[in-house]
Amino acid sequence: MELNEILEGVRDHTLSLEEAQRFIQGYSEYGYAKLDSDRERRSGFPEVVFCSRKSLDHLVNIYEGLYLEKGEVLGTRATEEQYEAVKKKLSRVTYDPLSRIMKIEKDKPHIGKIAICTAGTADIPVAEEAAQTAEFFGSLVSRHYDVGVSGIHRLMSKIEDIQSANCIVAVAGMEGALASVIGGLVKNPVIAVPTSVGYGANFGGLSALLTMINSCANGIATVNIDNGYGAGYLATQINRLAAGSVT
Amino acid sequence: MELNEILEGVRDHTLSLEEAQRFIQGYSEYGYAKLDSDRERRSGFPEVVFCSRKSLDHLVNIYEGLYLEKGEVLGTRATEEQYEAVKKKLSRVTYDPLSRIMKIEKDKPHIGKIAICTAGTADIPVAEEAAQTAEFFGSLVSRHYDVGVSGIHRLMSKIEDIQSANCIVAVAGMEGALASVIGGLVKNPVIAVPTSVGYGANFGGLSALLTMINSCANGIATVNIDNGYGAGYLATQINRLAAGSVT
Amino acid sequence: MELNEILEGVRDHTLSLEEAQRFIQGYSEYGYAKLDSDRERRSGFPEVVFCSRKSLDHLVNIYEGLYLEKGEVLGTRATEEQYEAVKKKLSRVTYDPLSRIMKIEKDKPHIGKIAICTAGTADIPVAEEAAQTAEFFGSLVSRHYDVGVSGIHRLMSKIEDIQSANCIVAVAGMEGALASVIGGLVKNPVIAVPTSVGYGANFGGLSALLTMINSCANGIATVNIDNGYGAGYLATQINRLAAGSVT
Amino acid sequence: MELNEILEGVRDHTLSLEEAQRFIQGYSEYGYAKLDSDRERRSGFPEVVFCSRKSLDHLVNIYEGLYLEKGEVLGTRATEEQYEAVKKKLSRVTYDPLSRIMKIEKDKPHIGKIAICTAGTADIPVAEEAAQTAEFFGSLVSRHYDVGVSGIHRLMSKIEDIQSANCIVAVAGMEGALASVIGGLVKNPVIAVPTSVGYGANFGGLSALLTMINSCANGIATVNIDNGYGAGYLATQINRLAAGSVT
Amino acid sequence: MELNEILEGVRDHTLSLEEAQRFIQGYSEYGYAKLDSDRERRSGFPEVVFCSRKSLDHLVNIYEGLYLEKGEVLGTRATEEQYEAVKKKLSRVTYDPLSRIMKIEKDKPHIGKIAICTAGTADIPVAEEAAQTAEFFGSLVSRHYDVGVSGIHRLMSKIEDIQSANCIVAVAGMEGALASVIGGLVKNPVIAVPTSVGYGANFGGLSALLTMINSCANGIATVNIDNGYGAGYLATQINRLAAGSVT
Amino acid sequence: MELNEILEGVRDHTLSLEEAQRFIQGYSEYGYAKLDSDRERRSGFPEVVFCSRKSLDHLVNIYEGLYLEKGEVLGTRATEEQYEAVKKKLSRVTYDPLSRIMKIEKDKPHIGKIAICTAGTADIPVAEEAAQTAEFFGSLVSRHYDVGVSGIHRLMSKIEDIQSANCIVAVAGMEGALASVIGGLVKNPVIAVPTSVGYGANFGGLSALLTMINSCANGIATVNIDNGYGAGYLATQINRLAAGSVT
Amino acid sequence: MELNEILEGVRDHTLSLEEAQRFIQGYSEYGYAKLDSDRERRSGFPEVVFCSRKSLDHLVNIYEGLYLEKGEVLGTRATEEQYEAVKKKLSRVTYDPLSRIMKIEKDKPHIGKIAICTAGTADIPVAEEAAQTAEFFGSLVSRHYDVGVSGIHRLMSKIEDIQSANCIVAVAGMEGALASVIGGLVKNPVIAVPTSVGYGANFGGLSALLTMINSCANGIATVNIDNGYGAGYLATQINRLAAGSVT
Amino acid sequence: MELNEILEGVRDHTLSLEEAQRFIQGYSEYGYAKLDSDRERRSGFPEVVFCSRKSLDHLVNIYEGLYLEKGEVLGTRATEEQYEAVKKKLSRVTYDPLSRIMKIEKDKPHIGKIAICTAGTADIPVAEEAAQTAEFFGSLVSRHYDVGVSGIHRLMSKIEDIQSANCIVAVAGMEGALASVIGGLVKNPVIAVPTSVGYGANFGGLSALLTMINSCANGIATVNIDNGYGAGYLATQINRLAAGSVT
Repeated sequence: MELNEILEGVRDHTLSLEEAQRFIQGYSEYGYAKLDSDRERRSGFPEVVFCSRKSLDHLVNIYEGLYLEKGEVLGTRATEEQYEAVKKKLSRVTYDPLSRIMKIEKDKPHIGKIAICTAGTADIPVAEEAAQTAEFFGSLVSRHYDVGVSGIHRLMSKIEDIQSANCIVAVAGMEGALASVIGGLVKNPVIAVPTSVGYGANFGGLSALLTMINSCANGIATVNIDNGYGAGYLATQINRLAAGSVT
Repeated sequence: MELNEILEGVRDHTLSLEEAQRFIQGYSEYGYAKLDSDRERRSGFPEVVFCSRKSLDHLVNIYEGLYLEKGEVLGTRATEEQYEAVKKKLSRVTYDPLSRIMKIEKDKPHIGKIAICTAGTADIPVAEEAAQTAEFFGSLVSRHYDVGVSGIHRLMSKIEDIQSANCIVAVAGMEGALASVIGGLVKNPVIAVPTSVGYGANFGGLSALLTMINSCANGIATVNIDNGYGAGYLATQINRLAAGSVT
Repeated sequence: MELNEILEGVRDHTLSLEEAQRFIQGYSEYGYAKLDSDRERRSGFPEVVFCSRKSLDHLVNIYEGLYLEKGEVLGTRATEEQYEAVKKKLSRVTYDPLSRIMKIEKDKPHIGKIAICTAGTADIPVAEEAAQTAEFFGSLVSRHYDVGVSGIHRLMSKIEDIQSANCIVAVAGMEGALASVIGGLVKNPVIAVPTSVGYGANFGGLSALLTMINSCANGIATVNIDNGYGAGYLATQINRLAAGSVT
Repeated sequence: MELNEILEGVRDHTLSLEEAQRFIQGYSEYGYAKLDSDRERRSGFPEVVFCSRKSLDHLVNIYEGLYLEKGEVLGTRATEEQYEAVKKKLSRVTYDPLSRIMKIEKDKPHIGKIAICTAGTADIPVAEEAAQTAEFFGSLVSRHYDVGVSGIHRLMSKIEDIQSANCIVAVAGMEGALASVIGGLVKNPVIAVPTSVGYGANFGGLSALLTMINSCANGIATVNIDNGYGAGYLATQINRLAAGSVT
Repeated sequence: MELNEILEGVRDHTLSLEEAQRFIQGYSEYGYAKLDSDRERRSGFPEVVFCSRKSLDHLVNIYEGLYLEKGEVLGTRATEEQYEAVKKKLSRVTYDPLSRIMKIEKDKPHIGKIAICTAGTADIPVAEEAAQTAEFFGSLVSRHYDVGVSGIHRLMSKIEDIQSANCIVAVAGMEGALASVIGGLVKNPVIAVPTSVGYGANFGGLSALLTMINSCANGIATVNIDNGYGAGYLATQINRLAAGSVT
Repeated sequence: MELNEILEGVRDHTLSLEEAQRFIQGYSEYGYAKLDSDRERRSGFPEVVFCSRKSLDHLVNIYEGLYLEKGEVLGTRATEEQYEAVKKKLSRVTYDPLSRIMKIEKDKPHIGKIAICTAGTADIPVAEEAAQTAEFFGSLVSRHYDVGVSGIHRLMSKIEDIQSANCIVAVAGMEGALASVIGGLVKNPVIAVPTSVGYGANFGGLSALLTMINSCANGIATVNIDNGYGAGYLATQINRLAAGSVT
Repeated sequence: MELNEILEGVRDHTLSLEEAQRFIQGYSEYGYAKLDSDRERRSGFPEVVFCSRKSLDHLVNIYEGLYLEKGEVLGTRATEEQYEAVKKKLSRVTYDPLSRIMKIEKDKPHIGKIAICTAGTADIPVAEEAAQTAEFFGSLVSRHYDVGVSGIHRLMSKIEDIQSANCIVAVAGMEGALASVIGGLVKNPVIAVPTSVGYGANFGGLSALLTMINSCANGIATVNIDNGYGAGYLATQINRLAAGSVT
Repeated sequence: MELNEILEGVRDHTLSLEEAQRFIQGYSEYGYAKLDSDRERRSGFPEVVFCSRKSLDHLVNIYEGLYLEKGEVLGTRATEEQYEAVKKKLSRVTYDPLSRIMKIEKDKPHIGKIAICTAGTADIPVAEEAAQTAEFFGSLVSRHYDVGVSGIHRLMSKIEDIQSANCIVAVAGMEGALASVIGGLVKNPVIAVPTSVGYGANFGGLSALLTMINSCANGIATVNIDNGYGAGYLATQINRLAAGSVT
C-alpha cells in the first residue's frame, strides 16, 4: 500500500489509525515484540515465528495476529505444550513433533525442485524443518535420507535426482563430509547444514560446521548448526530465482 | 564426448591413447596432480587453479595444459613470483596484486547482476577475488565498497542497486555485522564472506565467521574466512539460475 | 562516619563494639560472607545481593541485615523459592520472575536518561535486569525492545529517543550486530550486553560477545554475557556523571 | 549545513556539485573508501584514520582530505614508513613510535580528568594510544604506569588521583587483574583494555580479556585486545558528559 | 614390609597367600579396581576415594577394605545417597554436604599452618574440600572466606595471618584475580584453585584458570577447576616440608 | 551373490523383486533409513546399530530385519527402555547396562588377542563397549582395568600379557597419559580411546584427546571420545590381519 | 644381549664399561639426550631422529652414533642446513626437501602393501614423510595422490588397488573428508592424517582433525596434524602383522 | 629499614630525599617503570627483570639500578642484542643463549635439593631457565634431561635421586605425560611446566597444559607454558621451607 493510499484510507475512515500507523512504521507493536509487517514487501517472505522460549500467551497472540493478516502462519521450534495452547484458539493449526513445526497452511502450488539429503537417520528432524519450510514457501521438495558417505553407493543410486534440483540441502552431523561429496557431483548450489548429531569431539556440531566451511568442493555455503529453517528459506530463494518466480 | 565417440576416435587414430584415457577417466594425470577434466561437464565450471604453495614448474605446466584445452585459465592466491614464471611461457597472462588473481581470459558477455559489498577498505582484496571470479565465469558485477554499519547512511545510499541484484556478496571482517543488515533489506540470497581483517579478539576472522553463521536475518549463508573465490563461484551459480542460463 | 566519631560513640556507649568494629573494618562479618558496608562510601552504590546459589537461610539473613541498615535491598538472579523464603521475614519484598530481581525499594526520583534496547523478545529478561537495576539506582530508563537489525526500520523509528539518552544499553544475542549499528548513530556511550539467546554456533553467547568486542563502531564497551545488572550499574555511573549527581 | 542551504549554495555557485553531493550523502567518495563526513554531526567526533594495511598513496590522500576539511587529523596504528610518506605532503604531521599515533593537532583546552593506568611497562604502548587519543579529543589525562597487582602498594600510593578522575582506563595483559582491583576502589566507570602482553596461555590477550569480562567488581566494561584508541574515545565520551561539554 | 619378611610370613603361615601377593604387587585386586596399597610408602599419603560415579556396592566394599587396613578413610565428591549406603555398614562414617567429603577419621595432631582464602561465598564448597582434606592429612588450617578483590580492605584486614602460613590456598571463580593479589603480598607458595563459580564467559571456570596460569605475581601454581582436594593435598606436602615432618 | 545369479533368481521366481533390488542397490530401504546390506561384502563386518536417539518402533524393525538376515545383531548405546521394547519381539536379545550393548550373538570361536586397558574404574563402560564389540566380531580379549600411571607398578605387573597382544586398546580420561606409557612398552599398535571421565578443564574429554593425539610415543592412533565401539572394531581389523583371517 | 653375556663381556674385556652400562641401562647418555638403545628390542623399530630444533653439532653426533650402531639412520623434519652439516661427516646421507627426510638407508626387501592417498597436491609432503618412513621400515608402498572427494571419480578409478592394501593412510587438509569416504570402501584399517593445508577456519589443521576423529565410517584412527611419520610407523606395524613378519 | 630510621637518616643527611621516598613508597620511580624495592622484604626474593620487549636504554638503566642496590641482578628472556647493550655498562654481566638468562651473580651456598626433569631435549631451554633461576636464589639443583615416558626405563634409572629432592620440576611439551608419571612415584611436590614443544594439535603448549592440569596423580600444580622462571621461583620457595631457611 502506497503512502497516499494509506492517508486516503485514514481520511475516508476505511483504515483505522492503528492500521495506518502499522503500515507507515512497517511493524505491529506488541510491547514485547515488533512484528515486521513490512517484511513480505522487502523480502518476498512473510514473518515466521521462532517459538523457542516464547511464553504461551505471547505465542497465541502472535499466531492470531499473523493468521488474521495472512490466512496462514509458519512457526518453528514449537513444543507440544505450545501447540496445545495455540490449538485452543486456532483449531486449524497442525504440529509435527519430528520437525517441531507448528503451522496453518493454505493450499498452494509447489514449483521448481529442491533436493534435501541427510547423512543419517538422526539428521532427519533438521532436514524436515528445512523441507517443510521450503514447502510452506511454495517449493517442490525431493527427500533423500540416510545417504551418508560411509556407504557411498546409497548416495550414488539417487544422484540423478539430486543433480536435477535447483538447489541441494545437505544435512549432516558427526564429520559432515556429505556436503563435500555432493558438492563435487552437482551443478547447482549446495546449502550445507551441520547438525549437533554425534558425541565426543563433535562439540555440539562444531566439527560438522568446520568441515562444511572448509569444504574442498565449490558451490557450498553453510548455515548455523541445526538451522533447517534457514536452509529451507535460502533454498527457496534460489529455487524461486531458477523458476523465474521472484515477485 | 560420448564413450563410443572416444572409442571410434581411437580406432580411427583421431584421438591419441593418452587423450582417450583422460576422457574415460575424467582427469589428466600429472603425477603430482590429477586435473579434473570432467569437472566442466559435471558442474558447468572449468577447473580453477589454487596457486598457493604450488611449485613454479608444476604451476607453469598446469597453466599450459589448461590453456591449451580451454583457451583461458583462472588462478587464485598467486604470487608475483609465480606470475613472472608463468608469463615467460604464456605471455597473455595477467596478474592483479590486489586480488592475487592470475588469469588468461577470453572475451565474454556478462549476464544478470551480482552486488559485492564490503564493510571497509581492508576487505577489498577479498571482494575483488570474488568479483573477478564471478566476472570470469560470466556474471555482471556491481561493486559497493566501504559501506559498513558504523556509518549506515553509506549503505542506504546504495541500497536500491543492491536490492536489484540476483545475489549479494557481503564481505566483512572485525564484527561482520554487514551481512545481517543487508540480509534484512533484500529479497535475494546473501553470501557472507568473513575476512581476517581486524585484530585482538577477531581471532583471524573467527569473530566475523560466528557473526555471520548466527545471523538473525534470513537468507544468509557463509563461506570460509577470506574465501572470495568461493563466494564468487556460488554467486555465479545463483546468478546463472536467475538468468536462466544454466547449461 | 569518621574514626574519631566512632571512637567517641564507643566511649559514650552510643555505638556497640560490634558496630564500631564493622565501621572500622568496613565490612560485616557473617562467617560465610563479609558484607562490604564500606562500599557505598567508596563507590556511591550500596551492596547488591547476587542470589544465585545462596542458601535460603544465608539469603534471609543478608536481606534482613541490609534492609535494617539501608531501608532497601536489591538482589539479582533470585528464584521463586528464594522469594518465598525472604517474603516470610520481609513482607514488603517484591519479585519479578522475568528479570529475576527481588527487592525492597524506597521511593526516589529518577534522573537523566538511559535507553535500553534489545534485538529480540528473548533478550528482554536481560534487558529488564539492566533496566530495573538502573531504576533502583535512580536513573530514568527508556525501553525499546525488539529493534534488531533484521528489520532496521524498527530501530530507525525510535532513533531520536535513543540519541537523546546519556547512555545506551544494547542487549543482543545470536550475532549481536545491534550494538554496532547503534554505535554508529549516537553521541554517547553504548554498553553492549551479549546474551546467550540463540543456538548452535552461538556457543552460549560467545558469538555475540566477540561481535561486540570487535565492533567497527566507536564508543562501545562490553560486559559479560547476560550481565544485565553490570550494564545497569555502569549506565547509572555514566548517567549520574552526565546529570551532575555524583556524590 | 541544512539541505536548503546546500541547494542555495549550488544555485548560487558558492558550492561545487561534488561538495553538495558529499553533504547530502554524508560521505566523501574516494572509490576505495567512503569517508564519513557526517560522523562529527552524529557523534561529536571527527573521522579518525586506522592506518593499518592502508597503502601509502591512499593514506596520503586521506590525510590531505581530512586536513583540508578540519585543520587536524588523528591516525592510529601508523608505521614509520607511512609517516615518511605523509610528511612529504604535510610537513606538520608528527609521529610517536611508541603509541604509533600519527597526527596533526590544533591547540585546544583539555577538560575534566581521565586516569590511565597500566599493570606493567610493556602495556604502555596501548596506554599511550588511549592517552593521546583522549588528549586529541580534548580530555585531560593523568598517567599511572606500572601499578600492577603483584606490588599493590604502588597502586595504593596513587589511588586518590585515580579516584578523582571522571573515568579510569585500566590497561593490562597477562592475567589482567588490575581492572578488578581498581573497580573495587573507585566511584566512576572503568574501561578495561586487555593487552596481548604475556606468553603461553595468554593466547594473544584472550586471558586478560576473559578476566576483565568476568570481573567480580562493578562498573567495568571491556574493549578489544590492545584497543587503546577505543578506550580513549569512550573515556572521552564519559569525560565530556561529566564535564558538561557534550555538544 | 620387606620381601624376605613377606616370604617368611608365607612359609610360617602367618601371612595368607592373598596378602602376600598384595604386598608384593603393591595393590589389592578388586576386579573393577586395583587399590594402590603401596601408595603410602611411596607418597606418604594413603589412598583416597574419588566417590564420583562409583556404584554403591563398589563404594561400600572399598570403604570397608580401606577402613580395615588403616582405621580411617577419606572420600571426596560423595553424594547423600552414597553416604546412606556406606553408613549402613560403617556407622562411624560422617558426611559434610557442603564439601561433599565422606570420611572416618582418627584423632590426630594438626601441625604447621595453611591459610585457605576464597574470593566469594560461592567458592566455599571447594575451599572446604581443600581444608578438610588438609586437616585429614594432619595440617592446621586457617580459613578466610569472602575476601575477594572487589573490596580489598577485607583481605588486608587478614593479611598478617595469611602471611604467617607455610602455604596459601587461593580459591576463586569469575575472574580469579585473588591469587595474583595474594601472591604479591606473601613469602610462601600460593596454590591457586579456579572454581566454576560465575556465568557467561567464565566458561565453567576456564576464565579463572587462565587468570591464575598467567598471573603476573611470582610463587603461584594452579590446580584443576574446583579441585579443592588436590590443593589440600599439595598444601599439606609443602606444610609437612616446612614443619619438618616428611617421613 | 553375483548379478547373473540375482537375475536368474528373479527369472525363476526364487528371489522376490524387493530382494533383488536390495542386492543390486546394496541396501534395504526403510524410508527413515537405508540399511547397508552390502557392507559385509565390502568391509568384512556386518551393519551394527547405533541405538542412540532411535525411536522404539524403528529400532525394533531394524533389529528384526538384521536378525532375520544374519541370525545375530549388535547394537551400541542402547537404553533400558529400548531393550524392553526389542525383547518383546526378540526374546533372545541381551542387554548389558554397563557397556549399553544390546545384542543377539551366535556362538563363535575367538581368535588372536587384543589387550584392553583402562586408567581408572570410571573408564570401564567405554572399555567394555570396546571389549564386547571385539568379542562379537570374533576376537579374543584380555582385560586389564585400573592400571593408570599414578601407580605405575599396577601396569608393570601386567605388561607381559599386554605385550603379547596383536593390538592394545588404551582407554583413559582425565589427562590420558596411559596411552603414551603403553606405547613406549609394546611392539604392536595402540588404539587410544579418550574418555569424558574427569571434571573441570578436561572439557568433556578434550584434554585426554589432545594428550593422545600429541603422544610422544610411536604406534598410537586415536578414536573419538568415549568411542569404545570404534576401538573394538579397529582392533579387530588389526587382530584379524595378524591372525591371518581376513576374508 | 642378555645380562650374563654383558657381564662376561666386561670380565673378558670384549665389552667396554661404557658399552656395558649402555646395554644395562638401555640408553646412551649424551648429556643433552638419552638415546633409547633398548627401543628396537621393545618395539621392533630403531630410534628415529626428530631433527626439528636440534642444534647442528648435537644432530651430527646423534647421526654418527646411530650410524655406527645400526648402519642406517632415519631422521624427519630436517632442514637443508642440517643436511649440509651431517653430509660433511657422513657422505652417504641423502635429503629429500619435499618430505624433509634425511637418511642413510640399507638395501632391504619391501613386504606387504600400504596404500597412501592424498586429497590434494599440497598434502604430498606429509604423505611422502609417511611413505618414506614406511619404506625405510621395510613396507611396500602404493601412492595415490590428488584423489580428494571434490572429484570422486579419481578415487574410484584407483579403489581396487587401495582395497588390496593391508593398511591405508589417508592424508587430507581442509575439511578432511577423504578418510571417511575411503573408510566406507575398504576392509582394512585406515590411518587418517589431518594436514595443516587450507586457510581461514581450518585453524592450522584442527578442522581436518575433528572431521577424522568424528568420522561416521568404521575402522579409522587418527594421528596428529601433519604427522606423516607417525602414520608410516603405525601402518608398518599393521602391515608387518598382516605379512606375518613381526619379530 | 624501619620508618623512624628513614626519618632519622633524612634529618641527619645520611639519606637523600629520593632514597627516603623510595623506602617509604616501597618502589623506585623510573617513569616507565616502578621497580618494587619493597619486594624482598615482602617475599624474600629480589626484583627480577623480565627483559622481553624492554628497550635497550630502559634495560640498561634497570640493570644498573638493581646492581647498585643489590650487587647482583637476574634477568630472563634476554636477547643477544640486549646482552651486548648491558655488557657495555656492566662488564660482569653474563648471558646464556640456551636459557636466555642474563645475570650478575654473587657467590652463594646452594641448599636443599630440587630435581629438574625434562621429557625431551627440546624442553631443555625451559628447564635451564628454571634451574638457573633456582640456583640464583640459592637452591641446589639436580638435572635429569630426556627422561620422557616413551622410554620409561630412562626415568626409572634416575628415580631415587628424583625422590630425594624437596621439590621436583617436570618440564614437558607434546602430550606432557611426564608430570603424571613422576607424580605417582614421589613424596614431595611436583611443579609441572608445559612447554610449547611439539606441532599440530599441541596448540602452542595448550595440550601439555591441559594434561598437567587434569593429572590423575596427586601433588602436582602447574605454571604457565614455557614458564621456567616461575617454576624455579616456586621450587625455591618450597626448598627453602624444607631446608628451614625462610627468612
